[in-house]
Amino acid sequence: MSKGVKIVTIGGGSSYTPELMEGFIKRYDELPIKEIWLVDIEDGKEKLETVGKMAQRMWDSSPYDVNVHLSLDRREALKDADFVTTQFRVGLLNARVKDERIPLSYGMVGQETNGAGGIFKAFRTIPVVLSIVEDIKELCPNAWLINFTNPAGMVTDAIIRYGKWEKVIGLCNVPVGAMMAEPELIGKTLDELVYAFAGINHFHWHRVKDLQGNDVTSEIIDKMYSNDSGIPANIHDTPFFIEQLKQMNMIPCGYHRYYYRSEEMLAHMLKEYNDPDVGTRAQQVKQTEAELFELYKDPNLDYKPEQLSKRGGAHYSDAACETIASIYANKNTQIVVSTKNNGAVPDLAPDDVVEVSAYVGAAGARPIAFGSFQPAERGWLQLMKSMELCVEEAAVTGNYGLALQAFTMNPLIPSGETAKRVLDELLIAHKKYLPQFAEKIAELEAAGCIVKGEVAKDLD
Amino acid sequence: MSKGVKIVTIGGGSSYTPELMEGFIKRYDELPIKEIWLVDIEDGKEKLETVGKMAQRMWDSSPYDVNVHLSLDRREALKDADFVTTQFRVGLLNARVKDERIPLSYGMVGQETNGAGGIFKAFRTIPVVLSIVEDIKELCPNAWLINFTNPAGMVTDAIIRYGKWEKVIGLCNVPVGAMMAEPELIGKTLDELVYAFAGINHFHWHRVKDLQGNDVTSEIIDKMYSNDSGIPANIHDTPFFIEQLKQMNMIPCGYHRYYYRSEEMLAHMLKEYNDPDVGTRAQQVKQTEAELFELYKDPNLDYKPEQLSKRGGAHYSDAACETIASIYANKNTQIVVSTKNNGAVPDLAPDDVVEVSAYVGAAGARPIAFGSFQPAERGWLQLMKSMELCVEEAAVTGNYGLALQAFTMNPLIPSGETAKRVLDELLIAHKKYLPQFAEKIAELEAAGCIVKGEVAKDLD
Amino acid sequence: MSKGVKIVTIGGGSSYTPELMEGFIKRYDELPIKEIWLVDIEDGKEKLETVGKMAQRMWDSSPYDVNVHLSLDRREALKDADFVTTQFRVGLLNARVKDERIPLSYGMVGQETNGAGGIFKAFRTIPVVLSIVEDIKELCPNAWLINFTNPAGMVTDAIIRYGKWEKVIGLCNVPVGAMMAEPELIGKTLDELVYAFAGINHFHWHRVKDLQGNDVTSEIIDKMYSNDSGIPANIHDTPFFIEQLKQMNMIPCGYHRYYYRSEEMLAHMLKEYNDPDVGTRAQQVKQTEAELFELYKDPNLDYKPEQLSKRGGAHYSDAACETIASIYANKNTQIVVSTKNNGAVPDLAPDDVVEVSAYVGAAGARPIAFGSFQPAERGWLQLMKSMELCVEEAAVTGNYGLALQAFTMNPLIPSGETAKRVLDELLIAHKKYLPQFAEKIAELEAAGCIVKGEVAKDLD
Amino acid sequence: MSKGVKIVTIGGGSSYTPELMEGFIKRYDELPIKEIWLVDIEDGKEKLETVGKMAQRMWDSSPYDVNVHLSLDRREALKDADFVTTQFRVGLLNARVKDERIPLSYGMVGQETNGAGGIFKAFRTIPVVLSIVEDIKELCPNAWLINFTNPAGMVTDAIIRYGKWEKVIGLCNVPVGAMMAEPELIGKTLDELVYAFAGINHFHWHRVKDLQGNDVTSEIIDKMYSNDSGIPANIHDTPFFIEQLKQMNMIPCGYHRYYYRSEEMLAHMLKEYNDPDVGTRAQQVKQTEAELFELYKDPNLDYKPEQLSKRGGAHYSDAACETIASIYANKNTQIVVSTKNNGAVPDLAPDDVVEVSAYVGAAGARPIAFGSFQPAERGWLQLMKSMELCVEEAAVTGNYGLALQAFTMNPLIPSGETAKRVLDELLIAHKKYLPQFAEKIAELEAAGCIVKGEVAKDLD
Repeated sequence: MSKGVKIVTIGGGSSYTPELMEGFIKRYDELPIKEIWLVDIEDGKEKLETVGKMAQRMWDSSPYDVNVHLSLDRREALKDADFVTTQFRVGLLNARVKDERIPLSYGMVGQETNGAGGIFKAFRTIPVVLSIVEDIKELCPNAWLINFTNPAGMVTDAIIRYGKWEKVIGLCNVPVGAMMAEPELIGKTLDELVYAFAGINHFHWHRVKDLQGNDVTSEIIDKMYSNDSGIPANIHDTPFFIEQLKQMNMIPCGYHRYYYRSEEMLAHMLKEYNDPDVGTRAQQVKQTEAELFELYKDPNLDYKPEQLSKRGGAHYSDAACETIASIYANKNTQIVVSTKNNGAVPDLAPDDVVEVSAYVGAAGARPIAFGSFQPAERGWLQLMKSMELCVEEAAVTGNYGLALQAFTMNPLIPSGETAKRVLDELLIAHKKYLPQFAEKIAELEAAGCIVKGEVAKDLD
Repeated sequence: MSKGVKIVTIGGGSSYTPELMEGFIKRYDELPIKEIWLVDIEDGKEKLETVGKMAQRMWDSSPYDVNVHLSLDRREALKDADFVTTQFRVGLLNARVKDERIPLSYGMVGQETNGAGGIFKAFRTIPVVLSIVEDIKELCPNAWLINFTNPAGMVTDAIIRYGKWEKVIGLCNVPVGAMMAEPELIGKTLDELVYAFAGINHFHWHRVKDLQGNDVTSEIIDKMYSNDSGIPANIHDTPFFIEQLKQMNMIPCGYHRYYYRSEEMLAHMLKEYNDPDVGTRAQQVKQTEAELFELYKDPNLDYKPEQLSKRGGAHYSDAACETIASIYANKNTQIVVSTKNNGAVPDLAPDDVVEVSAYVGAAGARPIAFGSFQPAERGWLQLMKSMELCVEEAAVTGNYGLALQAFTMNPLIPSGETAKRVLDELLIAHKKYLPQFAEKIAELEAAGCIVKGEVAKDLD
Repeated sequence: MSKGVKIVTIGGGSSYTPELMEGFIKRYDELPIKEIWLVDIEDGKEKLETVGKMAQRMWDSSPYDVNVHLSLDRREALKDADFVTTQFRVGLLNARVKDERIPLSYGMVGQETNGAGGIFKAFRTIPVVLSIVEDIKELCPNAWLINFTNPAGMVTDAIIRYGKWEKVIGLCNVPVGAMMAEPELIGKTLDELVYAFAGINHFHWHRVKDLQGNDVTSEIIDKMYSNDSGIPANIHDTPFFIEQLKQMNMIPCGYHRYYYRSEEMLAHMLKEYNDPDVGTRAQQVKQTEAELFELYKDPNLDYKPEQLSKRGGAHYSDAACETIASIYANKNTQIVVSTKNNGAVPDLAPDDVVEVSAYVGAAGARPIAFGSFQPAERGWLQLMKSMELCVEEAAVTGNYGLALQAFTMNPLIPSGETAKRVLDELLIAHKKYLPQFAEKIAELEAAGCIVKGEVAKDLD
Repeated sequence: MSKGVKIVTIGGGSSYTPELMEGFIKRYDELPIKEIWLVDIEDGKEKLETVGKMAQRMWDSSPYDVNVHLSLDRREALKDADFVTTQFRVGLLNARVKDERIPLSYGMVGQETNGAGGIFKAFRTIPVVLSIVEDIKELCPNAWLINFTNPAGMVTDAIIRYGKWEKVIGLCNVPVGAMMAEPELIGKTLDELVYAFAGINHFHWHRVKDLQGNDVTSEIIDKMYSNDSGIPANIHDTPFFIEQLKQMNMIPCGYHRYYYRSEEMLAHMLKEYNDPDVGTRAQQVKQTEAELFELYKDPNLDYKPEQLSKRGGAHYSDAACETIASIYANKNTQIVVSTKNNGAVPDLAPDDVVEVSAYVGAAGARPIAFGSFQPAERGWLQLMKSMELCVEEAAVTGNYGLALQAFTMNPLIPSGETAKRVLDELLIAHKKYLPQFAEKIAELEAAGCIVKGEVAKDLD
């Protein structure tokens, strides 16, 4: 890295890229970037060019001399990279629309990282990310891979478990949101509190202490019930039952709503799904993205527009930039990341990927040992991690029985004939991106299985 | 025991008692009983007398001189007992009707040992069983406790964990059923197969080998899909998905249907619930029981009537007799029991109670080490055991937050406002039997909470 | 096996073979043997022929028609075998003499299965047994492998771990000895007691209950201190400290003397070593064996001679015959065996081989879950198992650093320069049987390392 | 703490106190101390006054207004303390002389924290420290306890396990020494390396990475064999075997020499023991201490004298000051501490105290998850921790059998009659400080057991 840092972003045509650029510009002093490569696929070429030009304008208006290279050739870009970030979406937003609408058409949660949709996002993404890892091993074996492609936990786990690549850190913006919102509830700043997170991606809990070492989690919980903060924009704000939170004396992440308030979350999603003026989250995001790209086309725009912050993933890219800078400058910043457990969560295996508070520096993420959970959280966590392991193995092997096991275990999918129907329809709907399941899909099609969900018609 | 064995049956007024007597008579040579005490409570006095006389008649028609004592005084009966069996039902069948109909009235599974009903059966039963354990410690400290009161797994676990009483074995008839039905599917007898069960009560799996040491589980699975045996009478016979069973290469117990085919099981239960001519299982059982007691009144009946076998719990009492005889005569019979894990299921803690194949002899149950499960079964099992631990602790402490946690974790209870409503209504409905929750119940009543489920009116 | 059982014994020229024959003849009714193959290597040809003829005479004087085939061609013999037993000794007794005398010449324990000698027996044996496993996979893939080649624990573990062969049971006669000697100490027969063994081969403990379920371990311990039974012939009879046994409330195996009374055991071994009229154990055994083979040459001897019982390994072969019969006839006999843990000893990994009470039947050995040990025994056991894992890996890879790690961990080898010297001398002394260490041995020889122990001269 | 920090040092009369003062003065800006209480017992009164005056002079010559209070009344001193440090030595150096010379007189390692001596230091110290904890609970329940009384690992573990006090951190200077010595071996500064320590006190290993994330442990090992640094002053400098270190790819702590090079360490200790001009370590320290106290008496000395650095425990007090400042100012400094495992070392139980790299801040020490060890280190560590647990329980209960178990397990004590003799003599020699063993000691004395080691005469 002596001649300056080379960063490669796979899925560079994403609307998030300007946030990433802003993060790098802000940290240039500690992270002296030389070149940035934005990589995308043919289907994303137009967006890549739009956002790529915008990115170059941002650097040009900064005091730093950084070139933004655009490429459709991943291997060319990866050569000698120092950091690779992944933010791609296999099948683009249309695939997400299917992940949402097909389950919802059968009355089940349809969501990007949870339930049937989350499982299929993993099925599409894991094989691609493993092929990227093979390229990294060959072309830039010293690089760190910073993954924020969802489902970030399973993807990171698969990179280590199946890709045998340990230099990876998975990121998520959810913990950042909690730490931004909660302190003021009890009249503190973040600097005045000590946060400890543990669990898995989109399924973690945290505890908080003050600077006298006193646990203030219970105090924050009390305040949350008069002041409804700390909830990511893309999660409906049904409150948790306070009796439950007081019993656990921890604060769950927003996504726990799907599991702790299934009834209300499903009702809300179905309402949006059934309202043609609203639509599911992916449909809303498509609209937001279209607007963002219109803005990006403005040749005078050379800074991250305000509107981007309203996109659900705010702070994602900032977390990525901070992680990269912490590794590069050995800053030992405390960040909540997906990384190999190593015992930090004793209720899971040492080689499982978990999402925990960690200190990030030159040696990567060093997770802080959290200790054992009480039975309720332990049981949930062990179920969810086991489900992830089934999903990952099915994603790698194309084993249908295992996919069905994952569906059956998933608490957001009521097991039975309809669940199997949804599994089969999603296989067919995503056929193009699921070569590992080709044989089963052919068998289903031969048996006359078709996508009945009303989303199929306009998306391929 | 030199002067003959003394057996005490708590809940002796049960309709199952004749099966128990039959089992003892059959095994008199290896288990020389001197006296049997049938104990029940005031509310069960009439049934106790009916079935008690019937029991004495059975012994009188046998070659053996055994006295059947009837008592409403548990402590008098327990004095110097060698074996204590528990088959009582706190709140009788009416309580079970509420466990079934209140959840079903809100569209959720209502069942004796699963879902909300199973949790409340544990809430009512555990405090009573712990008070029995205290009596045993004082009055018959050398006795073995053979529990077949449901939920047998949680009750047995609580006896060891909270009662600190290790001389207990929990029993269930479900494994017996599987072993009676499956061998013929592949043209074998039970003697020609080696069964290995592991899991927890009503949530276990088994594997089968033949005498050449070959795994024949897969072969049995294949046959199950042309011949639908091996399913206990009280479980609707929706088949499992064969792809799922082939993937796990184990056979789940019948109760797994609630978890692997939730949609169909719920639909079936709701259909029965809504049909006034059918009713829920408890209502059906009430009818069967009434008929049985009519039979028992016949002063000429001195053998177990055929009709008893049709009652769901067939083989329960036989399993109990075999267990007692195996302990007494150190027979080392292989029986599937609920007992302390000790590592037999490495995915759970060594001090958790599990249900496993064990050799039963003078030293009690010695579980056979089963080894680790694959992720899918492991995750399910860890979730369910953790839920049980929450239920037990709530049963002992009356902690409402923990009860809510158990409800939230339970896969048969969709979390949310309705679940909390069901929890609250069940608390009120079972108020009489839940002194540990008295404070919370008073609070709920003060807030105007009432049982809205249509079952409440005629059952108290 | 329809046409009768075929048994192959590798190391068939052993002086134990008549005991094996006696055991098979005794059990013919439940184990209908058709043919027995005794296999040995060229160096053992003479002994094989002597003992082979003797074996055939034993069968000829029985009512059964069984042919004893002698072969120097292992692969010819293994074809279609039903059971393979291993009782060979790589390097014969001369190698054992070196294992004993080289460490002793430096003032360290020199013993067949413990300390430096035990480690080297594993180094020589494991590669050979793994090559046998490869032959079994090819030539008799349905066979069970019954191993009583020492160190039986490590050899059995290596067969499963590195050979990937699960149909193996390791046997040892030590537990048999304890169960034969102890009951009478408290005026009981073995039938009146329940034994539970757990640990690893030559390093296990046991607890005993009576038929009322009471723990009588402490009572046996008390009696052991007035009546010194239960100690295998080849272990000097220094008693354990009674305070230690009472604290653990378990009975260690005889080999624990090396660890619990190191001072006295070493002194005793050095005394024998230094006395030219006594010599180390292997030297004594050589004498015994020579005498036995003289007896076997007698063409009129057609039964196991009394003298064989005085050889240290009495009951070994009987345990093997019982194990084979139990598998064949699915007898579910309780036998203490080396087998995969599967959780039976929760303090070790589920896939470690342990030595535990197990029920042996058609599905092999099913270990009884023993539960966790208290800290003292747990710590010892975890150390010893870890040491075994180092030894096995070094045996497979020839990794010198790992061999040194094993030496350093081994409680019977005081670490330091002398330990390293002993390691190096043993490598050179056993050069012929350690191809995996060839490179290191060459390096040592190039550096002038020679065997200084006075044993080397006459043994190659 | 609003009015300034109150620090109480139990064992304040120690010769280390000036180093502690220096550390506090240096950090005054981040740790605004108001008062310091030095507490000692009657026997240490003279030393307390000497070092206390010296301490006050050090503060008086600083810019800060801090009062140093001297007290023989622990409870008076503890009132409202913010931090309590423990550096006392039960029985003073004379007790340590016995811990060293009695075992050595029987040819065994005699050492402050290892072998028989270390066990007896724990026996004397743990009851005292637990009584201090009771005072803290009553008099200063918000205080942090910073323990550097040896054996620091067992003492810290006992505080949490038996004292039920979680606000404790145990400290040791050994890791500091390694981190000061090693970087220059490979031409780096400490800032350019990432250290990861794990194990237990005086029995840990570490790995090192550079700022590119590459493991450089092996490189350091190579350099250690041409440049012999990194070894604490009180450990003889026998090198480890390089083959062993390369195999483990970790660097052991200096105390591992006792275990990895037992032969040479013992020989060295015996040489010093037998040389009247040298004497054991405690005897050398007594001499050093006498000289230090002479210096301290100089009314003009107002700074830490150079000679103190030559005392073995250099950096101990500095580590303590840094720990206190890190807690107070939530600095999140990386420090190697003894703290509750919480999974950081998955090979030990989550509630065991371990010694690991941790981030220290307002919430105390947050250990960094290290991950599982390989078999060799795992086995050693599990043995040693189990031995510690036996020692602690024996220290609390006075159970002689458990003390004997600990002696038997300890790798530095060859088991047998002599070991038992040493145990018994040490019990008698330390009788005054071992009330928990009073009954056993009386029994030993009644049986005529006396201290034969030649040290006893002049030390009481």
